[in-house]
Amino acid sequence: MTHLRAAEIQDEIDGDTLHEECGVFGILGHPDAATLTALGLHALQHRGQEAAGIVTFDGKQFHTEKRMGLVGDHYTDPAILAKLPGTISIGHTRYSTTGEVALRNVQPLFAELEVGGIAIAHNGNFTNGLTLRRQIIATGAICQSTSDTEVVLHLIARSRHTSTADRFIDAIRQMEGGYSMLAMTRTKLIAARDPTGIRPLVMGELDGKPIFCSETCALDIIGAKYIRDVENGEVIICEIQPDGSIQIDARKPVNPQPERLCLFEYVYFARPDSVVGGRNVYVARKNMGINLAKESPVEADVVVPVPDGGTPAAIGYAQASGIPFELGIIRNHYVGRTFIEPTQSIRAFGVKLKHSANRAMIEGKRVVLVDDSIVRGTTSLKIVQMIREAGALEVHIRVASPMIYHPDFYGIDTPDADKLLANQHADLASMCKFIGADSLEFLSIDGLYRAVGGEKRNAARPQFTDHYFTGDYPTRLLDKNGDNSSPKLSMLASKG
Amino acid sequence: MTHLRAAEIQDEIDGDTLHEECGVFGILGHPDAATLTALGLHALQHRGQEAAGIVTFDGKQFHTEKRMGLVGDHYTDPAILAKLPGTISIGHTRYSTTGEVALRNVQPLFAELEVGGIAIAHNGNFTNGLTLRRQIIATGAICQSTSDTEVVLHLIARSRHTSTADRFIDAIRQMEGGYSMLAMTRTKLIAARDPTGIRPLVMGELDGKPIFCSETCALDIIGAKYIRDVENGEVIICEIQPDGSIQIDARKPVNPQPERLCLFEYVYFARPDSVVGGRNVYVARKNMGINLAKESPVEADVVVPVPDGGTPAAIGYAQASGIPFELGIIRNHYVGRTFIEPTQSIRAFGVKLKHSANRAMIEGKRVVLVDDSIVRGTTSLKIVQMIREAGALEVHIRVASPMIYHPDFYGIDTPDADKLLANQHADLASMCKFIGADSLEFLSIDGLYRAVGGEKRNAARPQFTDHYFTGDYPTRLLDKNGDNSSPKLSMLASKG
Amino acid sequence: MTHLRAAEIQDEIDGDTLHEECGVFGILGHPDAATLTALGLHALQHRGQEAAGIVTFDGKQFHTEKRMGLVGDHYTDPAILAKLPGTISIGHTRYSTTGEVALRNVQPLFAELEVGGIAIAHNGNFTNGLTLRRQIIATGAICQSTSDTEVVLHLIARSRHTSTADRFIDAIRQMEGGYSMLAMTRTKLIAARDPTGIRPLVMGELDGKPIFCSETCALDIIGAKYIRDVENGEVIICEIQPDGSIQIDARKPVNPQPERLCLFEYVYFARPDSVVGGRNVYVARKNMGINLAKESPVEADVVVPVPDGGTPAAIGYAQASGIPFELGIIRNHYVGRTFIEPTQSIRAFGVKLKHSANRAMIEGKRVVLVDDSIVRGTTSLKIVQMIREAGALEVHIRVASPMIYHPDFYGIDTPDADKLLANQHADLASMCKFIGADSLEFLSIDGLYRAVGGEKRNAARPQFTDHYFTGDYPTRLLDKNGDNSSPKLSMLASKG
Amino acid sequence: MTHLRAAEIQDEIDGDTLHEECGVFGILGHPDAATLTALGLHALQHRGQEAAGIVTFDGKQFHTEKRMGLVGDHYTDPAILAKLPGTISIGHTRYSTTGEVALRNVQPLFAELEVGGIAIAHNGNFTNGLTLRRQIIATGAICQSTSDTEVVLHLIARSRHTSTADRFIDAIRQMEGGYSMLAMTRTKLIAARDPTGIRPLVMGELDGKPIFCSETCALDIIGAKYIRDVENGEVIICEIQPDGSIQIDARKPVNPQPERLCLFEYVYFARPDSVVGGRNVYVARKNMGINLAKESPVEADVVVPVPDGGTPAAIGYAQASGIPFELGIIRNHYVGRTFIEPTQSIRAFGVKLKHSANRAMIEGKRVVLVDDSIVRGTTSLKIVQMIREAGALEVHIRVASPMIYHPDFYGIDTPDADKLLANQHADLASMCKFIGADSLEFLSIDGLYRAVGGEKRNAARPQFTDHYFTGDYPTRLLDKNGDNSSPKLSMLASKG
Repeated sequence: MTHLRAAEIQDEIDGDTLHEECGVFGILGHPDAATLTALGLHALQHRGQEAAGIVTFDGKQFHTEKRMGLVGDHYTDPAILAKLPGTISIGHTRYSTTGEVALRNVQPLFAELEVGGIAIAHNGNFTNGLTLRRQIIATGAICQSTSDTEVVLHLIARSRHTSTADRFIDAIRQMEGGYSMLAMTRTKLIAARDPTGIRPLVMGELDGKPIFCSETCALDIIGAKYIRDVENGEVIICEIQPDGSIQIDARKPVNPQPERLCLFEYVYFARPDSVVGGRNVYVARKNMGINLAKESPVEADVVVPVPDGGTPAAIGYAQASGIPFELGIIRNHYVGRTFIEPTQSIRAFGVKLKHSANRAMIEGKRVVLVDDSIVRGTTSLKIVQMIREAGALEVHIRVASPMIYHPDFYGIDTPDADKLLANQHADLASMCKFIGADSLEFLSIDGLYRAVGGEKRNAARPQFTDHYFTGDYPTRLLDKNGDNSSPKLSMLASKG
Repeated sequence: MTHLRAAEIQDEIDGDTLHEECGVFGILGHPDAATLTALGLHALQHRGQEAAGIVTFDGKQFHTEKRMGLVGDHYTDPAILAKLPGTISIGHTRYSTTGEVALRNVQPLFAELEVGGIAIAHNGNFTNGLTLRRQIIATGAICQSTSDTEVVLHLIARSRHTSTADRFIDAIRQMEGGYSMLAMTRTKLIAARDPTGIRPLVMGELDGKPIFCSETCALDIIGAKYIRDVENGEVIICEIQPDGSIQIDARKPVNPQPERLCLFEYVYFARPDSVVGGRNVYVARKNMGINLAKESPVEADVVVPVPDGGTPAAIGYAQASGIPFELGIIRNHYVGRTFIEPTQSIRAFGVKLKHSANRAMIEGKRVVLVDDSIVRGTTSLKIVQMIREAGALEVHIRVASPMIYHPDFYGIDTPDADKLLANQHADLASMCKFIGADSLEFLSIDGLYRAVGGEKRNAARPQFTDHYFTGDYPTRLLDKNGDNSSPKLSMLASKG
Repeated sequence: MTHLRAAEIQDEIDGDTLHEECGVFGILGHPDAATLTALGLHALQHRGQEAAGIVTFDGKQFHTEKRMGLVGDHYTDPAILAKLPGTISIGHTRYSTTGEVALRNVQPLFAELEVGGIAIAHNGNFTNGLTLRRQIIATGAICQSTSDTEVVLHLIARSRHTSTADRFIDAIRQMEGGYSMLAMTRTKLIAARDPTGIRPLVMGELDGKPIFCSETCALDIIGAKYIRDVENGEVIICEIQPDGSIQIDARKPVNPQPERLCLFEYVYFARPDSVVGGRNVYVARKNMGINLAKESPVEADVVVPVPDGGTPAAIGYAQASGIPFELGIIRNHYVGRTFIEPTQSIRAFGVKLKHSANRAMIEGKRVVLVDDSIVRGTTSLKIVQMIREAGALEVHIRVASPMIYHPDFYGIDTPDADKLLANQHADLASMCKFIGADSLEFLSIDGLYRAVGGEKRNAARPQFTDHYFTGDYPTRLLDKNGDNSSPKLSMLASKG
Repeated sequence: MTHLRAAEIQDEIDGDTLHEECGVFGILGHPDAATLTALGLHALQHRGQEAAGIVTFDGKQFHTEKRMGLVGDHYTDPAILAKLPGTISIGHTRYSTTGEVALRNVQPLFAELEVGGIAIAHNGNFTNGLTLRRQIIATGAICQSTSDTEVVLHLIARSRHTSTADRFIDAIRQMEGGYSMLAMTRTKLIAARDPTGIRPLVMGELDGKPIFCSETCALDIIGAKYIRDVENGEVIICEIQPDGSIQIDARKPVNPQPERLCLFEYVYFARPDSVVGGRNVYVARKNMGINLAKESPVEADVVVPVPDGGTPAAIGYAQASGIPFELGIIRNHYVGRTFIEPTQSIRAFGVKLKHSANRAMIEGKRVVLVDDSIVRGTTSLKIVQMIREAGALEVHIRVASPMIYHPDFYGIDTPDADKLLANQHADLASMCKFIGADSLEFLSIDGLYRAVGGEKRNAARPQFTDHYFTGDYPTRLLDKNGDNSSPKLSMLASKG
């Protein structure tokens, strides 16, 4: 898989990529709350590059700023940070469509409740969001955004409980799916992770103040200490006391399921220096390469990563196989911020806007190309062609994850199932022929499990969720499988 | 009064101006709905220059575009109009603060109800908006904007009625204040005016399709025909029938009060070519000048309007007095779109950025300066100084409306009462001295009534609302006078 | 003539307007030089709205800022003014095409000479600019802009004289045409006006420091004193002495011609409060209306100006005829800054984006419409149609200047001669029919001369230049009539 | 050295980086000339990210577009490419300061000569530019930009030769320094490289049409064929003939010096997949790492590159030493486009905005950090600190180039000599202590020569230029060492 880490035009056109929607960060009781949140979001930028928002509370009033673009485009500006005073803050960075209207959907969302204001932000997706939305509207409420997050706000508002924390718990008890959620009120920072723990969420600490964020890299950037992962099904409520101290209350209000973290966090989404579920992502990726080398060896002269996603697995493959690791593909990081559609003649040059072959490492060589995953295969096809044009004798593709057959419903934006490479070809040979490689091999599901967790897949009780590979979804899919014969919501076009 | 018709820096700094919040326009069943709405809003631009929004419905989906800036900055662009397909449209132009966050408050607002989507836009203000807001939140609803319009959406959503029209009526029955409101659903365009008819709203027709808008000038720009004013307390429901015909249903669901249109529409807000309450605004303003000449004559050589607001009254004053009308003050219309705060040295040049004296018409002359109104008097002071520096022998100020003593609660943004000129001085002599004029006279309240309606004020049952002059408010003021000891809403800073 | 004072879309499309290219302002020895220049340019904004530039010298270095857009869009910003330190400053505002490349042509232009840096700015046009340009290039110089101003820089650079002032004089001796020019060096501010004095230029003083600017309104805005007009053919050299005093040296290096100021300055270009050639422009325009009433009376009910250009003449016409002056056409000043081409359906609404009829002053009335001039007549046609649709019984057009037959070569941008109304019709009756009026009359050339100067045209030695009306050009037209058979310059597309 | 490949704030603040000014690309006779130039410049983006310009000739007229920002920000837009018709094109990408005024200095520059238009663009710097500039101005020419390129235009314009090619040769005969230059006229594309060949320039071919560009990666992106390097002191003139064929004329008009390519092209500037001087850059960098491992071995657990510049050398070091290569530092590529200065509290987090430690690869390990070069050492200091905080037992820095002592005058922007690390410390031990490493070693000059060219430095006749390491400048430095006692040029502030 190639990575849409910047606004990469060609991939967009091809749709040959997966997107995750969000990263979250929150901190309670720190005088630099907004600045720390901005830095945390910057470190989580790989989880969503299109928009970012921050909410703070300054003891009197809530403040919010939302912007299209990168965190570093706006939130290093003293003038913007000055608009975000206060010691409580949550922030959100997301992948989304562009435009002004879209700002409506940028999180955190805020609502005025009887008990006071509340802001929430989450990473993930609710599998019963649409169903709940219909029920809520049927009782006379109004929905103004097209975001599922608004549904959570409604559930909180309607709860009969008096404390915000109890209301929050009341709400998430009704939500199904995969999510890591942060909420803030005038005195509290609340973190929650879904019952199966599909999306990651960690707890840290800086100067004695609690922090929650999607990945540990957001702790590292500010020199914060990692405390522990928020557990699946857990809600942690942090509250500033009148004396300034912070009381932390961890609960398990939902009947816990066995944890099943999303394997794609290890394969592709998380930053290599993050520790997810207690495991360093870079090490997991290297292990995928090592296992791949064991499962699918090949005689070759050089191991070449498809940058940047394939690099750790390629290092592992090279170390395990003894074949030298070389940068045979050079990536152009200056892709431009433009959303202008390129001319037809520029589009015809395709993948080369981002990647070019390093001929000296390719020519006359048998090349093992290591990529992290393959979605539709259209990018792989172009890369193989580029490598062949650079004079490779043989091109062997080794993919550090299994074949993708099924869509995700927990926050990963996948192409339609019938566009996935694995669904367009009867067998591996056909895929290999389509891509134009001399050989094509995917890491086995057990190889992947071992790379990440040390043990092979426990079929009775899988240690992770792997539904895109296996179709074994960790939750029911109410919106998808429920009665959707009723007319569609007339919701506003989210054109923006 | 000086006019904040463009982004006029100096007035903003002085706060020496009144603002009205909005203009509205809606059309049902026309293939060019969005274009006609854009043109109508352009004609209503004087009612609010800071942002504009349009919603359309294309038979399947609602579409919305909201932009900061002038209508002509965005809505002449084919690319933007192309995003607004459909034959039903409502639009809104408003005076407001700037910034991205502020887009949340730009109307029309949209909500998904059980019975389908609805969009609403209004001009005016609710005197019980905050009270209702608290009640709504107390029952478990969420409010996401700081706009009163959202309250109306909630009331519509909560109504037990099944038809949208009935729900809409249910909602406005609960609203108090001064408002002209438009709503649209998938098949309907609904117009409503408050029980006392404080804000204007007219009905027109183009190609047999109904139109509602704040002033008749929005009909003229598109060549539409004026039908009649929406009456105070009236709700008019227009619905497209399956056969394409339009059924119009006018109701008076609220116990009607005597109509009391806002006098400031005649004095300052409405465009001179508009017909408001059946009376041409230019004629009314000229009459104010004529009556002013009769009430407060003065021997002088030249009648000079404070442009542009004072011009019609000055023409009337000149005609009635026989003193020649001359352009003794020239206005610079190129004030710039910038919201950049000017340098101290530029600010020191004050009013001259907009106005300059036409010395040939001033020097050695006794000058009657005619303005439409005076708010704080700071601008008048600078203009008198400028006229004196240009060599005037005498400067007599004649104001074509009475003294302002009281704040407005129906959609006009007034300075704090203690900053009004009339409240800062014991008597007219003191005001005159402050401004530096040789004489200062205001039109009497009866002179104003006669100028607009032909008859003097009926003290028992005033024909208009004139609360800013008299303190006689046409409705109760629940939010202002009610129990507001409860803690303030922690609503988001509307900084933008 | 309708006015392109803001970016008025429809006129642009029609080309039914004249543009003047520039306004200039310069000051020597004042600590607020850049701020005063910005204010002066703001007052001269009507002479060119598309771009503005300012150059300063701070004792060590020259500084320059150039921006597309209005002066008030940029030069009130403290951050921009802070980039323009120093006590010597010249500035320029221009009408021009838009775009980034066009910034190359925005004045003032700067050059490094052997004797030090020099910046120049001018209003007007050289009738031998192209001829000189070819000669200069033929001797091995390079031209980087498409601006005639660059030619002047070359002539200065090539002069054998040692002092900048002598070099400057050397250069302008070679230039033909109509121009008012400012130059600045490290110690000098130099002003020059062409031998026939076609374009205006005045000298003023603030705090004892000399100022030069296109019109007196730029003195008024900063409270500066008017000293005198720069005479035709005069060069005034102001220099800061080592002791801080300023020495002023006025010369007449060119054999003086009789002065012939451009009549269009009075008819249309100059601001009504300016004093041009010792005559107040507003008074001149009123006189045009008075003379027009005498020459071409008509029985009517109301005199209506075509705003804003026709207003002073309409006041004059009304006073002389005794017919009441009324605002029968209302102008929308909010045209928007957009250069987006409007949709076809919006364009079809034509002139109404800017003007609308004030029906109460039109309906059932015999209307005299007074405009300042007519160029192509397409706008007049639309206005007559609008007035008729508003119910006028009769529409009589009175134009406060003669018919335009000939192009200008001195800084006014005129349409092709064959598109001028006067050249498209055999006689007045045909023009009147085309426009759709009941009668159409133009001010006579003698009527215009009398309005401006008190006496009729001296045919032997005309007091003004009136070539657009008469074809009597005040200078030879070398570029136009010379040998232009040689291949065109391959100069860069001025697309911008 | 860390890389300022994007707008990296912290480095800018530290000045701890080297910049090269430019990349050039030109093509003759191709229907897609502008598109190919845009793609070529995109591939050369690493040579300058701040602005780019393209000039074309369409048979009648020259066209030019210049933009601040990345090539991909503008030149993929069909609307912009449509403004650049024609079959001859040259383009330029540069590192420079930002702002509107700076557009004046963006290349290519264009001039109108007697023989027709000419555009030129170059990479490098002239060591006698200022001297020539003074001479030119002294003879009555004007200089409008602060760019040396303008001097070349003047020399071409003044040449007595009749053909443009001869004039071009005349001009470059007078220029000293290091440069690769492209020029285009209505029929010709001309390429030239300085007599010692300091800056690179290669010739390629696409569809039979000649291309010149700074590096071969600009050929690869468009699938063009590499022909050969332009030789030092060579001028190649390509001209379209009347029959459409292209005639190529290569000359050596300057007495050739031995070639001395700039070593920093290999160390840092060129893209790893480029072939410079016949040598693959990636291979050269790997060799630097291999030689470094031989010269300065160390017992360690892991070889970690300072990304991205240190990666190839780290791979070489790892292969030669047998110590595993691991990604111990993760780079955040989303640095943001902002030029907003970050807040003090964000700045305090320093280098972490870009880099973070991958703790799993660092903790408890002896780390060899490999970087390409060290300029001021401030970034290295922060990286060592970050690595130590991540738990490294030992940190050994190995730099794949020698110590930098001297400034460059051939197009590389170096900090003041007294700020270079090597000049601030008496010996290696002191530098090592400053940086905080356990050991610090630089590649020897002979090690570098061997890595690039296979042989050690020939002291009598060095194969490359290495003046920043050795002080042995390949040309005289006229501007620097000449008589500069005369007053400085008063040239415009290049603030922008």
